[in-house]
Amino acid sequence: MLKFRKGCWTMRIDVLTLFPRMIEEPLGESIIGKAVEKDLLEINLHDFRQYSDNKHKQVDDYPYGGGAGMLLKVQPIYDNLKAIEAETNDQKKRVILLDPAGKPFNQKMAEEFSQEEQLVFICGHYEGYDERIRSLVTDEVSLGDYVLTGGELGAMVMIDATVRLLPDVLGNQTSAKTDSHSTGLLEHPQYTRPAEFEGMGVPEVLMNGNHRLIEEWQLKESLRRTYLRRPDMLEKLDLTPEMEKFLAEIKQEEK
Amino acid sequence: MLKFRKGCWTMRIDVLTLFPRMIEEPLGESIIGKAVEKDLLEINLHDFRQYSDNKHKQVDDYPYGGGAGMLLKVQPIYDNLKAIEAETNDQKKRVILLDPAGKPFNQKMAEEFSQEEQLVFICGHYEGYDERIRSLVTDEVSLGDYVLTGGELGAMVMIDATVRLLPDVLGNQTSAKTDSHSTGLLEHPQYTRPAEFEGMGVPEVLMNGNHRLIEEWQLKESLRRTYLRRPDMLEKLDLTPEMEKFLAEIKQEEK
Repeated sequence: MLKFRKGCWTMRIDVLTLFPRMIEEPLGESIIGKAVEKDLLEINLHDFRQYSDNKHKQVDDYPYGGGAGMLLKVQPIYDNLKAIEAETNDQKKRVILLDPAGKPFNQKMAEEFSQEEQLVFICGHYEGYDERIRSLVTDEVSLGDYVLTGGELGAMVMIDATVRLLPDVLGNQTSAKTDSHSTGLLEHPQYTRPAEFEGMGVPEVLMNGNHRLIEEWQLKESLRRTYLRRPDMLEKLDLTPEMEKFLAEIKQEEK
Repeated sequence: MLKFRKGCWTMRIDVLTLFPRMIEEPLGESIIGKAVEKDLLEINLHDFRQYSDNKHKQVDDYPYGGGAGMLLKVQPIYDNLKAIEAETNDQKKRVILLDPAGKPFNQKMAEEFSQEEQLVFICGHYEGYDERIRSLVTDEVSLGDYVLTGGELGAMVMIDATVRLLPDVLGNQTSAKTDSHSTGLLEHPQYTRPAEFEGMGVPEVLMNGNHRLIEEWQLKESLRRTYLRRPDMLEKLDLTPEMEKFLAEIKQEEK
């Protein structure tokens, strides 16, 4: 099933969803659509309603024990996964359930996913999942500590964060590495033309072409932004002596 | 600009994006499309490229001081915001910049946003923003600790999480309140028919119709799931004596 092309693997992504159109259009417009065009990626959308063994093609039912809302039944998802399995049998894959009770998604997970040969996303809807669906997956992942009406946006976000890390997907290879969360620091302030806009200027140091000074300023302002906004991120980082020095200065300056 | 209808306000949402089609289709398919049809919501998509004063309608430029990638210029976004302002002048609004260096989005923020009359989202692309764009907004928000190719998916997620909290948007009003992250606990396991599937059953207690026992089981299993997966969430919660008792039992059982 994996396609070998110009020395790199094509990743296969399968998405189980009741609303394939919610996913199809934005993917086509985005960088992911371009990756598909370049054969770097194969995406299959599955409407798992087709797999319902119920004559009304029902995919949800009332919860045992009562309670509001409907739950997704296990059978249609089970059979859809079996059908994917039959096509890709012994392929190493991650089967990811989008669920607010899952592990919060982060950049490290995106990096892990980008190493896989195949990713299968299951998008929920309604009130939730029959618990037995969880036994069919390798990962239960949450987009963050908030609730959405369905899993489609979550799957799109995870696909976007993952696919942009694949080789040759982003035009500019250096870009992905200097972003916020890729270095463990928030990105430093950046400026483009004009030099003055509505009374707002650009820091002198960025205009004078001294690359050593510019790099120092960028590192220090990255540290400053992280220190002020996300001190929790700094705690997880191994600081170099230069970073320690800047951080001491910042703590003085921000007092 | 606000529309008064059957005793409730219509919320106005504006999205500044270079890729309006990425947003238009999925919104139409989702619960948000239905809220727009029901006049509970007005969404305006703005392609801010139109506001560029450059004859080539350029919206990005090289960063001062060098570095990879292009930055979004301040002028087109400034002029687009001015145009929105002219339509909605003194209306109380939040202007939200989608940015990985922003405050992480969470359920509390969704609840706050759902109280506003107007929300304006600015979706970035390319390497980042000219720093001066930040001075035009009230909030800088990140979807989570990961990097995406653009802000559109983030804006859709925030709109979805917010709009589902508006009155009359979700069919079943009780649903939004019992979800994971709305109560401060992860949701308990849920089951629907059949009672047995591929050797997997349903807990006895949910089948016997004793509502007091079912509620106790649900609370305890909510606590167990939160304790096992997200102990950080438990730390933020005021526990009732009943919850304390269950938690002590769970700690014994999970030893």
